[in-house]
Amino acid sequence: MKKFIHENFLLETQEASILYHEYARDMPIIDFHNHLPPDEIAGDARFENITKVWLGGDHYKWRAMRTLGIDERFITGGATDWEKFAWWAEAVPYCLRNPLYHWTHLELARYFGIDDKLMGPDTAREIYNHCNEMLETEEFSTIRLLKRMRVEALCTTDDPVDPLKHHIAYKKVDSAPALFPAWRPDRAMKIEDSETFNAWVNLLENASGMNISNFNDFIDALEKRQAFFHEHGCRLADHGIETFYPSEAREGEINRIFNDVRSGIQASPEETAKFKGYMLYRLSLMNHAKGWVQQYHFGVLRNNSSRMFKKLGPDTGYDCMGDSNHAQNLVALLDRLDSEESLARTVLYPVNPPDNGIAATIMGSFQEGPAKGKLQLGSGWWFLDQKNGMEEQMDTLSLMGLLSTFIGMTTDSRSFLSFPRHEYFRRVLCNLFGNDMAKGLLPADFNLAGRIIKDICYNNARKYLRLE
Amino acid sequence: MKKFIHENFLLETQEASILYHEYARDMPIIDFHNHLPPDEIAGDARFENITKVWLGGDHYKWRAMRTLGIDERFITGGATDWEKFAWWAEAVPYCLRNPLYHWTHLELARYFGIDDKLMGPDTAREIYNHCNEMLETEEFSTIRLLKRMRVEALCTTDDPVDPLKHHIAYKKVDSAPALFPAWRPDRAMKIEDSETFNAWVNLLENASGMNISNFNDFIDALEKRQAFFHEHGCRLADHGIETFYPSEAREGEINRIFNDVRSGIQASPEETAKFKGYMLYRLSLMNHAKGWVQQYHFGVLRNNSSRMFKKLGPDTGYDCMGDSNHAQNLVALLDRLDSEESLARTVLYPVNPPDNGIAATIMGSFQEGPAKGKLQLGSGWWFLDQKNGMEEQMDTLSLMGLLSTFIGMTTDSRSFLSFPRHEYFRRVLCNLFGNDMAKGLLPADFNLAGRIIKDICYNNARKYLRLE
Amino acid sequence: MKKFIHENFLLETQEASILYHEYARDMPIIDFHNHLPPDEIAGDARFENITKVWLGGDHYKWRAMRTLGIDERFITGGATDWEKFAWWAEAVPYCLRNPLYHWTHLELARYFGIDDKLMGPDTAREIYNHCNEMLETEEFSTIRLLKRMRVEALCTTDDPVDPLKHHIAYKKVDSAPALFPAWRPDRAMKIEDSETFNAWVNLLENASGMNISNFNDFIDALEKRQAFFHEHGCRLADHGIETFYPSEAREGEINRIFNDVRSGIQASPEETAKFKGYMLYRLSLMNHAKGWVQQYHFGVLRNNSSRMFKKLGPDTGYDCMGDSNHAQNLVALLDRLDSEESLARTVLYPVNPPDNGIAATIMGSFQEGPAKGKLQLGSGWWFLDQKNGMEEQMDTLSLMGLLSTFIGMTTDSRSFLSFPRHEYFRRVLCNLFGNDMAKGLLPADFNLAGRIIKDICYNNARKYLRLE
Repeated sequence: MKKFIHENFLLETQEASILYHEYARDMPIIDFHNHLPPDEIAGDARFENITKVWLGGDHYKWRAMRTLGIDERFITGGATDWEKFAWWAEAVPYCLRNPLYHWTHLELARYFGIDDKLMGPDTAREIYNHCNEMLETEEFSTIRLLKRMRVEALCTTDDPVDPLKHHIAYKKVDSAPALFPAWRPDRAMKIEDSETFNAWVNLLENASGMNISNFNDFIDALEKRQAFFHEHGCRLADHGIETFYPSEAREGEINRIFNDVRSGIQASPEETAKFKGYMLYRLSLMNHAKGWVQQYHFGVLRNNSSRMFKKLGPDTGYDCMGDSNHAQNLVALLDRLDSEESLARTVLYPVNPPDNGIAATIMGSFQEGPAKGKLQLGSGWWFLDQKNGMEEQMDTLSLMGLLSTFIGMTTDSRSFLSFPRHEYFRRVLCNLFGNDMAKGLLPADFNLAGRIIKDICYNNARKYLRLE
Repeated sequence: MKKFIHENFLLETQEASILYHEYARDMPIIDFHNHLPPDEIAGDARFENITKVWLGGDHYKWRAMRTLGIDERFITGGATDWEKFAWWAEAVPYCLRNPLYHWTHLELARYFGIDDKLMGPDTAREIYNHCNEMLETEEFSTIRLLKRMRVEALCTTDDPVDPLKHHIAYKKVDSAPALFPAWRPDRAMKIEDSETFNAWVNLLENASGMNISNFNDFIDALEKRQAFFHEHGCRLADHGIETFYPSEAREGEINRIFNDVRSGIQASPEETAKFKGYMLYRLSLMNHAKGWVQQYHFGVLRNNSSRMFKKLGPDTGYDCMGDSNHAQNLVALLDRLDSEESLARTVLYPVNPPDNGIAATIMGSFQEGPAKGKLQLGSGWWFLDQKNGMEEQMDTLSLMGLLSTFIGMTTDSRSFLSFPRHEYFRRVLCNLFGNDMAKGLLPADFNLAGRIIKDICYNNARKYLRLE
Repeated sequence: MKKFIHENFLLETQEASILYHEYARDMPIIDFHNHLPPDEIAGDARFENITKVWLGGDHYKWRAMRTLGIDERFITGGATDWEKFAWWAEAVPYCLRNPLYHWTHLELARYFGIDDKLMGPDTAREIYNHCNEMLETEEFSTIRLLKRMRVEALCTTDDPVDPLKHHIAYKKVDSAPALFPAWRPDRAMKIEDSETFNAWVNLLENASGMNISNFNDFIDALEKRQAFFHEHGCRLADHGIETFYPSEAREGEINRIFNDVRSGIQASPEETAKFKGYMLYRLSLMNHAKGWVQQYHFGVLRNNSSRMFKKLGPDTGYDCMGDSNHAQNLVALLDRLDSEESLARTVLYPVNPPDNGIAATIMGSFQEGPAKGKLQLGSGWWFLDQKNGMEEQMDTLSLMGLLSTFIGMTTDSRSFLSFPRHEYFRRVLCNLFGNDMAKGLLPADFNLAGRIIKDICYNNARKYLRLE
């Protein structure tokens, strides 16, 4: 049987192969949005075994295992690492056509050199031992893993109250990746749960060294933290947004809601919506003031199973796409910011495919020089971080915007082994261009297409993000 | 001209051909949701002519004929059976690219051996006569037709007040299909029309032998009927749902609404929504209590033309997809049931393609062993029961869930001649796998892919449904 | 390098090539919805240079240039025509995969014979000079341009207060296209801005020679204008609709709202919705009364950037798709009209791809003879006027309606150079059929497929529109 992961994996045409191998493959990586733990980067950490680095925290795999009816004990429970790995090996063949099937074999090939066997119950033990042996070598420290993938820069995801001590401690040497924090102030918006919100505002008081007695103080404290983040190289903000709300509430009312919540009164749904709408506007003003890029990740419904949320907490595989209407409120927010000449460079990340067209055409309403692609359609993420999702995102951007301005892929990942997703993305990208070229939909001009591909892989992100 | 319906119809690659002919083709059929008339099965009925069995009740064909401007007289009106057939023959060539074009020729080939001519005005008479002759033979009784298609089990669609006399009378012999009722309590939710609702509650009183004087009685009577259905082999519930509503109303309020409607007061839209939201929750609890599978068919707007509804009644071709937002209320319902450890195995059937991703990712939030694929994305149905619709459903399920757990196709049909749709589905399924294999997106492992294909065609449904 | 625009551009199979060249290519064009300026047709105008005719008013190109960060001075500002052209030439290579890339080269080939070079900075000057020389010849008057593309009839877009003087003055000679007005009464619905609305009602008073003192007068005046339009050949109405509203308001209330707005009181959002819902119903009754075709273009959000709207006005590239829910209100409107036996032949133009399925299945609920395809799914327009958008529209129509009844392409364009979009559409259409035929999804019957293709290109529109 031909190798599954071979030189031209995903590349259906000769044209795609040329574009990938001659233009895309060797470009460096800027992974500008991920959830890697800064301590493990700063500490150049090593991993006990393949289960820890590959299955711990990967809720995509957990969902698949649950769907196959595997007992939670072997997923997040008390089973041994070998047992968990063995059950994952049972699951893999039944992930056929799911991105996990591709990622799994691509990661085994790229990090562990395993490209001559498919994962399954019969190969599980051998793969487990082989990977664990390799993980013992110094080539498998976090920084070495990143360097091997040509990662030039990383932006993690950090709470405003985070002291960024690992970012500060981290010393980039030689060709190691640069490490930047990214500002994720979602907890500043979550007033629906007053207890958690107040606990967080208390943390913010500590972090900012300020007393927060009203909404103005709250903003001041956030701005102080933002300045601190900026000083440590932060140039991006991330916003996780269920849906957009009108931003027009008066500040007096927002202050009243804020004080109520601070005094322990639960905000009503209407008050919550008002606060969130206004707060996203204010946070967006802050992003613009610092010259940052802001990323709106929108449309996810989270923690859907209350029962499992109580057991396992967030980010454990219990989320889904929502189907809220976003267009009018998103347009209104961007229009307000634009009217006030305060619209930051913005990346829109819809998670539900029908929202791709909405986002791509909204972007067109606010594009303006001198930045190229001031508004961006973010790469397919979460449920859309797979071949079809990437293709739909790129087709939509091509047809309703300009693909040539795209800042490309970012992993959004929690795992040090997920960087072959950039390779995956680049193969999908080159395959699109290659197919088009083979069909005569593009002129057979490799320099033209190749230049745009290089821009999408790396150059556009480098110019757009203004990391230092 | 090459035969249109030939051995490798829909199979574009050598790989697809192998997968279909060696794995999928000969698997038996469990048709777990259809609208076949139980009396015609129990009575092993025969058909007067091809018009009766093929055009009577087929609102897909009626819609096509209306779209072509054909007079209603020749569709559902007083014209002769030959005239109706002749007009349908006029229409067929203009159904090119519509699933009717494929179904028509596949059905002519599989049941009547006609695969050397295309249907049209010039072949109408010959086909009409040929089919009618064959219908006179004993090979064309309902049970023989089903056996010929390898149908192993059928689940019809039955109202809770139905005495199931045909199911009870039916004696399965030899290799004839098993026949099961399925529980469709939609009329228990339709309080918006108090007259019809009350008439139905009266029928329920009769059927259950109970006096229904309040909401509790109503539930008791339904449970009594459910037990009767269970006793006669029912293991599935069907719910036709326009959209989902919150389920949190207090039972006292539901009882008040119920009593108002029973006394002839029209429920307001808000009351109707409350009642429907709560009622679906209660019916879902009942499904779980009996260990049944529940099927939520959602998103259809029905009987859109009041004028034609008055003339022809429901299910006559005047329905459409809706575009309501389902995600939040569906998540809330499933979460409530899951929190109360009362979530039955559930099949979600969205009818609007953008809802596929919603449904597939919601499912992932509630998957749990020991059942494989406890939540299912139902096969493309109604407007989506065609090649693209099937492919989209399977791609979505593959990418956002696990295709390997899929319980596969069911006809949802009113016609004894529609069972080649299982063949159609299997060809589309094998074509997907075959194309992927040819492109190297799957390993070229026929045993692996073939095993999953067999599961989807038959094994998964058999295990999942627990029919006896 | 092979020519980019060659004989079989977009035609991937031998079958497609046969269908295009033998059936589609030479059919005449009825462009039943566009925004061409009637004065330039009636006056058989000529163009100063290629920038004026190609870049002036083309907000698709403007958006692309803004996305690339080009200064507004070189787009709509004070730069010279050569500078604007040169910047557009810089932009073109970066429009790869956007429809602009295809349109640009197709238009250069078809009008200016340039098919041996790609547009870009290095070819800009040569192309500019070549086009400008050709524009000086008499072959480049508006009517000659239209004749060269085989345009048989044109319907422009006209305000009810328009005196239609250019339509009246225009004398069709020889094979020049027939010129018809189309009725676009959008301003009769825009009461949300009372000042603009009142100014327009004053214009309507003038145009109708009537005093408008209440809502009845308003309708009378519109009917008078409609009769005038009808007399001058108008047979189509266009309605630009953000979303649909219920139409059930009492006329007394509508009259009250109308009078309030006339007296300078600003209508509330609820009043606006009521008025628009009712008004679309009344305008639709008028369309039916005259035996016209009505076109509902729905789902666009317009003038999203207030800042740029103030600078440049409407139709300058600041619009997007919306994601409102349309189905229920649209069904209710059509049902009301259908119940009153007043449903005109109607073309639905959704602009957001997920609405294609909604529209196609709603149509099926109201189809009725004797007209073929009484309700139509309009061709992909605006953001969807590109290969994928056209394919999705035709696939949806094929699968959920009947493609054979389709009235086909219209440019919706403001430019005399955009008529190769009919060629583009026909190639896409033939490619769909050709691919299907090559895969055996259609029988290899060129006469059957070719007849349907000819109908879609021309015959269906001719019969459906009843232009005289």
